[in-house]
Amino acid sequence: MGELYLVGMGPGNLEGLTLRAQEVLGRAGTVIGYSTYIGLLEEMGLLEGKGVVRKGMTEELDRAEEALERALGGERVALVSGGDPGVYGMAAPLLELMEERGFRRADGGVGLPGRFRLGEGEVWLEVVPGVTAANAVASLLGSPMAHDTCLLSLSDLLTPWPLIQRRLHAAGQGDFVVVLYNPQSKRRHWQLRRSAEILLQYRPKETPAALVKGAYRRRQEVVLTTLEGLLEAEAGMLTTVVIGNSQSRLYEGTFLTPRGYALKYDLETKEALPGETPGLPLRRGDA
Amino acid sequence: MGELYLVGMGPGNLEGLTLRAQEVLGRAGTVIGYSTYIGLLEEMGLLEGKGVVRKGMTEELDRAEEALERALGGERVALVSGGDPGVYGMAAPLLELMEERGFRRADGGVGLPGRFRLGEGEVWLEVVPGVTAANAVASLLGSPMAHDTCLLSLSDLLTPWPLIQRRLHAAGQGDFVVVLYNPQSKRRHWQLRRSAEILLQYRPKETPAALVKGAYRRRQEVVLTTLEGLLEAEAGMLTTVVIGNSQSRLYEGTFLTPRGYALKYDLETKEALPGETPGLPLRRGDA
Repeated sequence: MGELYLVGMGPGNLEGLTLRAQEVLGRAGTVIGYSTYIGLLEEMGLLEGKGVVRKGMTEELDRAEEALERALGGERVALVSGGDPGVYGMAAPLLELMEERGFRRADGGVGLPGRFRLGEGEVWLEVVPGVTAANAVASLLGSPMAHDTCLLSLSDLLTPWPLIQRRLHAAGQGDFVVVLYNPQSKRRHWQLRRSAEILLQYRPKETPAALVKGAYRRRQEVVLTTLEGLLEAEAGMLTTVVIGNSQSRLYEGTFLTPRGYALKYDLETKEALPGETPGLPLRRGDA
Repeated sequence: MGELYLVGMGPGNLEGLTLRAQEVLGRAGTVIGYSTYIGLLEEMGLLEGKGVVRKGMTEELDRAEEALERALGGERVALVSGGDPGVYGMAAPLLELMEERGFRRADGGVGLPGRFRLGEGEVWLEVVPGVTAANAVASLLGSPMAHDTCLLSLSDLLTPWPLIQRRLHAAGQGDFVVVLYNPQSKRRHWQLRRSAEILLQYRPKETPAALVKGAYRRRQEVVLTTLEGLLEAEAGMLTTVVIGNSQSRLYEGTFLTPRGYALKYDLETKEALPGETPGLPLRRGDA
């Protein structure tokens, strides 16, 4: 039986790998991925003695096909994604392709890991989760994601812009913290500005925002700005953008979205405020 | 100078730690955390020879205070959170308390890691990100989070219910995948049902949903159901709930939210559909 592991690399440095990802990459015979990620794994020294297949950016279906064919042939394959394979990564294109090719469940199970069969071939499939960009970037900022958050990709390669725009409005209406993946590229130059314009309809122009480029990689850049500042900001393919909710603020160079402790407790004494009880619902605060 | 590390444990098994988390825990003199997480670290054998402070569930501010005092006293402290410290974890209460206590930045920097000063004391502060529950749970299901997603906590201890409800409506309007943290407790028994009722106003009752309890821990349970099924579902403090968007479907026991490849490509030939071009915006599909 072949084995296919969808491996989340985390932000892209060795220390950001999970022990499971490191172990699976160590045992893999073949590693398949987008060329940037393959390059990072090479620098980490994790590809020595392995078969390596590097593909271009829009070739996700080719990567998935190659991984499936090799696993069907009995190889132990690691198909890598930056961050987490489930967040704009390889998990969905792989399952979509398996469905199209007619892979059937072979173990009667639910969820993953699992065994899947096509003709005479059988494949063990496992997803190894990783630290997604939102969490990596948040750790470099302070606590921007400490309250309810939307992850939203601005890429229009597979999503029509009207749907992206509808989601930006919804994120504004719900006062969600917003993390933008793929905020900008050479071709897509106006979407980030338009996103800021939409969110400005719902929250103050001073709302903290941040651009983090190449988190945990060489030449990492962390820029704090405001929602209004995003109107003129420049981002790239390696940038993740974070926009606070209406309660977010800056504190000594950090991006602080409060969890709500100050609504319930006197932070000086740590005692509950009058009318509030630890372990019971918050009584004050509005929607 | 004392050192304070906010360490994300990931789902709670040794293999889910990042290499950085393992290293930081290895070097820490004192480990502070909620008793469940301390218990998990003990089982992993990571606490031998260390000072250990375990606190109860609603004592986040006490944990933060203890960590700060010890770091100010020169200790090397790891303050642990399940999953990621930035997602409903210890990052926000720590920064909120530092602000209240009057800690000032000592390095003139932006973001974290950084050095902070209070009186004569100085503390190095770093957040070590981890795999948050949403990603751990997604990896056990298939690809539920492959499109834009909201992370939403149903806990009303620090958030008024009307705000939670407003966010559920927004998530419905935006057709976001929804991941519910803290969906239910003994006291909070009706919020999960009410959440399903709200989302049923926006998407079909057959929409896939899942309950995952104790992901990557002993007695892990993965249950696939539907949005309608959540009306009668039982969840607990260790459960994370995932609700698909309008495109999500089941495929051979996996929870598949498509990324959108089938809108642009013929999955059999992997060629772009008529009118579509790889690397250019999607032309079909609606909002």
